[in-house]
Amino acid sequence: MPEVSLGQVVRWLEDLYEIGGGEGANRVGFTDAESRAHERVAIWMSGCGLQTTRDTAGNLYGRRPCAEPQAPEIWIGSHLDTVPNGGRYDGALGVVGALAAVAGLEEDVPAAATVVAFRDEEGARFGRGFFGSRAVTGRLVQEDLEQRDANGERLADVLDELGFRLQVDCSWLVERPGAYLELHIEQGPVLADRDSPIGIVTAFVGLIELQIEFVGYAAHAGTTPMNARRDAGLAAAAFQLAAAATAEHMGDAVVTTGSVVLEPAASNVVPARARLTVDARAANNDRLLSLEQGLRAAARTAAEQFRCDMTIAKTLQVDALPTHPMVVEALRTVAPAAPVLPSGAGHDAQVLAAAGVPTGMLFVRSLNGGASHTPVEATHPDDIDLSIQVVRGAIMHLASELLATRAG
Amino acid sequence: MPEVSLGQVVRWLEDLYEIGGGEGANRVGFTDAESRAHERVAIWMSGCGLQTTRDTAGNLYGRRPCAEPQAPEIWIGSHLDTVPNGGRYDGALGVVGALAAVAGLEEDVPAAATVVAFRDEEGARFGRGFFGSRAVTGRLVQEDLEQRDANGERLADVLDELGFRLQVDCSWLVERPGAYLELHIEQGPVLADRDSPIGIVTAFVGLIELQIEFVGYAAHAGTTPMNARRDAGLAAAAFQLAAAATAEHMGDAVVTTGSVVLEPAASNVVPARARLTVDARAANNDRLLSLEQGLRAAARTAAEQFRCDMTIAKTLQVDALPTHPMVVEALRTVAPAAPVLPSGAGHDAQVLAAAGVPTGMLFVRSLNGGASHTPVEATHPDDIDLSIQVVRGAIMHLASELLATRAG
Repeated sequence: MPEVSLGQVVRWLEDLYEIGGGEGANRVGFTDAESRAHERVAIWMSGCGLQTTRDTAGNLYGRRPCAEPQAPEIWIGSHLDTVPNGGRYDGALGVVGALAAVAGLEEDVPAAATVVAFRDEEGARFGRGFFGSRAVTGRLVQEDLEQRDANGERLADVLDELGFRLQVDCSWLVERPGAYLELHIEQGPVLADRDSPIGIVTAFVGLIELQIEFVGYAAHAGTTPMNARRDAGLAAAAFQLAAAATAEHMGDAVVTTGSVVLEPAASNVVPARARLTVDARAANNDRLLSLEQGLRAAARTAAEQFRCDMTIAKTLQVDALPTHPMVVEALRTVAPAAPVLPSGAGHDAQVLAAAGVPTGMLFVRSLNGGASHTPVEATHPDDIDLSIQVVRGAIMHLASELLATRAG
Repeated sequence: MPEVSLGQVVRWLEDLYEIGGGEGANRVGFTDAESRAHERVAIWMSGCGLQTTRDTAGNLYGRRPCAEPQAPEIWIGSHLDTVPNGGRYDGALGVVGALAAVAGLEEDVPAAATVVAFRDEEGARFGRGFFGSRAVTGRLVQEDLEQRDANGERLADVLDELGFRLQVDCSWLVERPGAYLELHIEQGPVLADRDSPIGIVTAFVGLIELQIEFVGYAAHAGTTPMNARRDAGLAAAAFQLAAAATAEHMGDAVVTTGSVVLEPAASNVVPARARLTVDARAANNDRLLSLEQGLRAAARTAAEQFRCDMTIAKTLQVDALPTHPMVVEALRTVAPAAPVLPSGAGHDAQVLAAAGVPTGMLFVRSLNGGASHTPVEATHPDDIDLSIQVVRGAIMHLASELLATRAG
């Protein structure tokens, strides 16, 4: 198989970056731009000697020919879609990096290594995300296909037009692999802070999303003394600070109040209502539960302090999930000095892991403070080079391990 | 002149309340509903024996015939427009209450008492407010006439259609009165808390409006450790609490953060920007300056704490203004037990006072926690009855006082 140079990988990333036009990467899932990216990568796969196939959800597979009939199937991949005005590396690096890693495997490595490009990880058009990985693992529900975009177009119809005849019936769309490895930029500052080009993911953090509403009483800003107010905006502010302090106190957790909406939102009216969305994450489920309890207590305290009513709804819960020891071990063997860290963001790898596939991830250092989902997103070519070598080494170790397990 | 009963006053209020239809009072300034209210009140004025005139801004005057040629001109009035879905009493009570007070004056009282209904105090359609009182006192600028409503219609054109040929030239539209007295609901809870049906206004509070922006850095809610964030939402929250504490500490000031807008306002992104509007009021200009300094310091501290950039713009400053001792004294003579309090809201009286007219205000107790600008607005008929008597008594005292001053 032809070796792929680092220069080639960088050119591929640039090619993909330019597809959608406009500022940054614009390859929103289930748009023409994503489809063009899939077509282009399929050509690159073929050029590297891989056999390309697609499943009924539009995911793209490039399979390395392997003489050994018992060779274990190992998937290495990520996604090709982006958010609007996204960055060069999010998703794309995991696909073209996997392609470079697989293309560089010695011929005698007994691995049916398959480069996978999942559809619509971000969910930027139809809202849910992880579409391709959920589809292939039989984890979609009919409702996913009924999602509509901002123009009212239905995802099921878009799939139809693309020629993908997806049936939702809880079974895998293709044969399940023996392991899944995903290369991805960190999208955070931790590796840069530790001065480390790569890191091995030990767990996918657990996540809850809360919607909290404080209800006080609208009052005239000039005629209502401070002590006669029930200011929902102040209750929200007290909660925001207490929530951040709770996460900081726990150390390994994060809490974000990303959205605060006040009503009536007039400069001269005391806010009667405040609606907040709270995103809270922790590295394991016990910590996540403690965090949730801390946030609920903080909301009650804030409501009492400002004499507001308060309601909390949990709108999302994703359990924390460790990565698989076999894949972690393969990465550690190749990169013993690499630090370990949890993944705070969601990835297709998490879906594969939840579906029972032995799964691991390698993070590459993000520059610019970990900026992602923006054109500012940056990763150094040297780090990319290293990460490809580590992925290649991990594939070899995984192949041996899977063969030995099967033999044993 | 025919005496006006309390029942008649209540019916007048009810008549005005029903004009606009829909929920609550709907007589937005410079709409048909406001004009209909003016027409109706003009008829009631005539019925009470007053001579009605209008100025070129559309303000309505009902002048009591007075045999005494030297009788001092005293205006008593308020406005007939409301916010959308407003209450029964805001503005309307001051006009019909004045009419009842003037109609009940003994014939020998030497006062050229004039009931005034100002146009568009609220500014609900064209945005600026205090239109009628600013117009008559020569305090409009040409820009006021160029204001457009949500449909792009120009106030100057609306005035034209109504037949008012207003020229903006800094002079009074009519002869200036010797005093102005305004009866108005408190729109706050202070009189109710003090168990007092009426209160005498000693000052119009000073007011500043600040727009504060905190700028941090958008970051991924899952991948960015708490200590690596520059969360503009938390800076805003810290400011809000510190600002409220500053006002509470001063005792006689109020601060309201009525609007907070976060960007990008996504549940899983650390807020990069927070824009706040802050309304701050104090009873005199020294206190207002202290308050402003406190708020600026609070904003700097909050920005530093969360490593954000911060800008402050002062978008409005209205100086505090005392009411006139002569009018306060007239009210105190009639109602010696009435508490004194500052007016936290803006009123046409403030415009008259700023234009040099000896001005005073009588507040009537608001029920329901001081709720105003809502159909929940409420004031007890007994309190209305008392306030009309006090206004009538004050007119008599003012007339004597003004006559004596002129003689002296």
